[in-house]
Amino acid sequence: MGSFDLNHSLKPNSDNLENLLDPEEFRRQGHMIIDFIADYYKTIEKYPVLTQVKPGYLRKRLPKSAQYNPEPIETILHDVQDHIIPGLTHWQSPSHFAFFPSSGSIAGFLGEMLATGFNVVGFNWMSSPVASELESIVMDWLGEMLKLPESFLFSGGGGGVLHGTTCEAVLCTLVAARDQMLSKIGRENIGKLVVYASDQTHCAIKKAAQIAGIEPKNFRVITTSRSTSFSLPPDLLRSTIRSDIEAGLFPSFVCATMGTTSTTAVDPLPSICDVAKDYGMWVHVDAAYTGSCCICPEFRHFIDGVEGANSFSFNAHKWFFTTLDCCCLWLKDPSALIKSLSTNPEYLRNKATDSKQVVNYKDWQIALSRRFRALKLWLVLRSYGVEKLRDTLRRHVEMAKTFERLIAADKRFEIVHPRYFGLVCFRISPTAIIDHKPKNKPIQNVGAYNDDRDDQKCINEINHKLLESINASGSMYITHAVVDKIFLLRFAVGATLTEESHIFMAWKVVKQHAEDILKDV
Amino acid sequence: MGSFDLNHSLKPNSDNLENLLDPEEFRRQGHMIIDFIADYYKTIEKYPVLTQVKPGYLRKRLPKSAQYNPEPIETILHDVQDHIIPGLTHWQSPSHFAFFPSSGSIAGFLGEMLATGFNVVGFNWMSSPVASELESIVMDWLGEMLKLPESFLFSGGGGGVLHGTTCEAVLCTLVAARDQMLSKIGRENIGKLVVYASDQTHCAIKKAAQIAGIEPKNFRVITTSRSTSFSLPPDLLRSTIRSDIEAGLFPSFVCATMGTTSTTAVDPLPSICDVAKDYGMWVHVDAAYTGSCCICPEFRHFIDGVEGANSFSFNAHKWFFTTLDCCCLWLKDPSALIKSLSTNPEYLRNKATDSKQVVNYKDWQIALSRRFRALKLWLVLRSYGVEKLRDTLRRHVEMAKTFERLIAADKRFEIVHPRYFGLVCFRISPTAIIDHKPKNKPIQNVGAYNDDRDDQKCINEINHKLLESINASGSMYITHAVVDKIFLLRFAVGATLTEESHIFMAWKVVKQHAEDILKDV
Repeated sequence: MGSFDLNHSLKPNSDNLENLLDPEEFRRQGHMIIDFIADYYKTIEKYPVLTQVKPGYLRKRLPKSAQYNPEPIETILHDVQDHIIPGLTHWQSPSHFAFFPSSGSIAGFLGEMLATGFNVVGFNWMSSPVASELESIVMDWLGEMLKLPESFLFSGGGGGVLHGTTCEAVLCTLVAARDQMLSKIGRENIGKLVVYASDQTHCAIKKAAQIAGIEPKNFRVITTSRSTSFSLPPDLLRSTIRSDIEAGLFPSFVCATMGTTSTTAVDPLPSICDVAKDYGMWVHVDAAYTGSCCICPEFRHFIDGVEGANSFSFNAHKWFFTTLDCCCLWLKDPSALIKSLSTNPEYLRNKATDSKQVVNYKDWQIALSRRFRALKLWLVLRSYGVEKLRDTLRRHVEMAKTFERLIAADKRFEIVHPRYFGLVCFRISPTAIIDHKPKNKPIQNVGAYNDDRDDQKCINEINHKLLESINASGSMYITHAVVDKIFLLRFAVGATLTEESHIFMAWKVVKQHAEDILKDV
Repeated sequence: MGSFDLNHSLKPNSDNLENLLDPEEFRRQGHMIIDFIADYYKTIEKYPVLTQVKPGYLRKRLPKSAQYNPEPIETILHDVQDHIIPGLTHWQSPSHFAFFPSSGSIAGFLGEMLATGFNVVGFNWMSSPVASELESIVMDWLGEMLKLPESFLFSGGGGGVLHGTTCEAVLCTLVAARDQMLSKIGRENIGKLVVYASDQTHCAIKKAAQIAGIEPKNFRVITTSRSTSFSLPPDLLRSTIRSDIEAGLFPSFVCATMGTTSTTAVDPLPSICDVAKDYGMWVHVDAAYTGSCCICPEFRHFIDGVEGANSFSFNAHKWFFTTLDCCCLWLKDPSALIKSLSTNPEYLRNKATDSKQVVNYKDWQIALSRRFRALKLWLVLRSYGVEKLRDTLRRHVEMAKTFERLIAADKRFEIVHPRYFGLVCFRISPTAIIDHKPKNKPIQNVGAYNDDRDDQKCINEINHKLLESINASGSMYITHAVVDKIFLLRFAVGATLTEESHIFMAWKVVKQHAEDILKDV
């Protein structure tokens, strides 16, 4: 590998100037990479799902500086195989049950390739009309599939936009809500705005509030409890709002979640909207993981009441097969967003914008430049149709039910939270741990908590050990959450390659590791 | 095309369940799309560079709703050809000279494909170590190639991160600067923070200030002038800051641009940093378009003084061949960013993070989820090496010089602003217009401005006509800017497929359209 030298000749080296986008070379290398990725999917089960590398592994393997000379793709792909793949956590593995899925599909991949190939910068209509128009059309299609109220669609005066992630979508709606309120009460009151969420709401909301300049002490976290399945209690929301108003503050934004990260808890949307309406607040509905399954009529009731909200978003890259990133956001009043986010420099002026007949999505998001994400969503919708999308989502839910049944049928385990979608929350049950423990003997091998008086902590530690032991095996990957002081294991079905056999295999792994751990108690 | 029906059976249709990511079907369709894109590049010159469609064209061509049944990729690709491509503005065309380039390359495309194929969600180290580690490594490599001071590299206590766009990068640095200042003066003073930019600074900075909750009337726009080539005058910056302080405000952030959007003006970085230092302000350097060419020693002097700044960014997707999106941001003190942007929910806790030995990039950006962008940057650096990257950038600059020479040698035109990089700013010269006009006859065909007393407006209108006429021809695409009341045409070389022949063709087109317009004056 050549070393890095700044003192190279100033004239372009004409021996070296075949075009970086030569079509035939593109074709040759493109076919090569398709085979590489197809082979990766074919053999993905041979890799440990959770990578086994240690922090800093890659610096030891790569050169200290960029090399001076070009290198052939064949060499680079060897290095991808030898140095990159070992450091991946395989989100596309059929045994990846961690976090929420990052679901790919052939259509999603193809859409991303076309978008990358065309490589247009669709900031406004003019810069590539099809990018704006296709986005508006597919967002209306998808809104209709979700039975969103007409008022959220372009056809009803609202509209949809594709963001990268929920974090961006929430930040934009929060800024719109903030400015809407400040235009009434005066901008000098920014320090008095209050934002509400529950203790189960995704950290994206708090981060958005930080970025938007909401006074940190005015970010209200409403406590949930096991008795209401960790959903946001509307009464507590109302009383909190009242005390804030009494204290001279201005409630402005509340986030309702449909399917929280820890347990897929569902907030009572109609009641939250009622409360918000009484105080003129903006309601955003975060359905990041679960929104997609509302295309199935049997799940749609979870977002009943959305007509009372101002905005609604879900991540098509989570459980709708577009590949990362693709967050779908709909608003009843896009003009509120546009008012906060628009910029109109001279160098972007054009007839189409002046005519006001077009959508300029740069004014619906944080960034000016934007990728042509609508293509992959369109390809997913067309390649699979409503039929196959519903079937696939239902198949994932069926697999989650299978895992749930296996867990529930074994007395050593318990389901910690009802399963609504594709996520099963479970743990080794306290009774199994107590049963395994000989009388009068403190529980062993659980770190600092081997004391009878501290059973809850001990139970948590044992379940933590189960998590680490399963993940260290490489045979599957799951993650955890803590709710109401209970450490629970999250088993999220939704990786595209997962088949029923992987569920049975996962159950075998869980059972085996639990048995080994219980033996040592 | 099937119509949309919500009353479909609730059970998955098992006839229909081949996996959405089946490796062999992936291979078949993947090869098909590679050929489709290779053919697109091969035949790209047959399309009008600026699309000729009218607003709303696509809704008339696509169905009203998503279809119920799956469709084969062959049908979809036909529709891409018939309905999508006509609505594209062809940013990859060798005759796309508009805005700034959106430069692709085989390596960039391949990197994007690998990232999409692996489809990992690299929010923290644990979620895919290689995504974090490769990013840190390539950002050090690239920082070294740019001769950034050691203090901006991980090896020197700073560090680099990949964002989607400059807008996001600037927003994050602005929020860090805001919070750093507020921690000194108290959060209640958010309404007193002042942000500075020039009238040539990209609108991203104003938008970032809006999002971050900076009081709109505290966004200062420093006026530039032709006499200083539209660069930000440090004396005016200093005197503005002084009056703000006298008015009880707190200067907190200034953006210096290296290569403004309108004319690639370069702000005097060392003097701006000196001013900022005196008042404890954050300096961000926006080198969105021009940063990449600083890997050539002969351009590096443009960012001399960067050692006095706090952060520096450029868009690798503009003129560094990664494809959209890929903004490179370096900071001297990443902890300021992390302080403002970090979130640590339980469900993301893990040993590696607790050990503090790893970089969790979620705390360096707006979003939690993040694509594996480092792969494409790594592929670009390795495939081409420093050598070929420099050669390609230099070749683009040489081509811009050629166009500049052709313009300058023809008395009917003038260069409006010195060319530093790949952008040529020109117009039909006022003398050519006056010369063409018969004595005592008002200038014709220029809308409302056919009056001798209003020559400047008339000259602008004629140049505007030239722009529209060239772009309507479809043979090339250029855009405009207005500086110091002068309407100028921007000719930006940098599309990867551009060869010298396209420059001569462009010159022919410009000359022909100008002649036709001058005839009618």
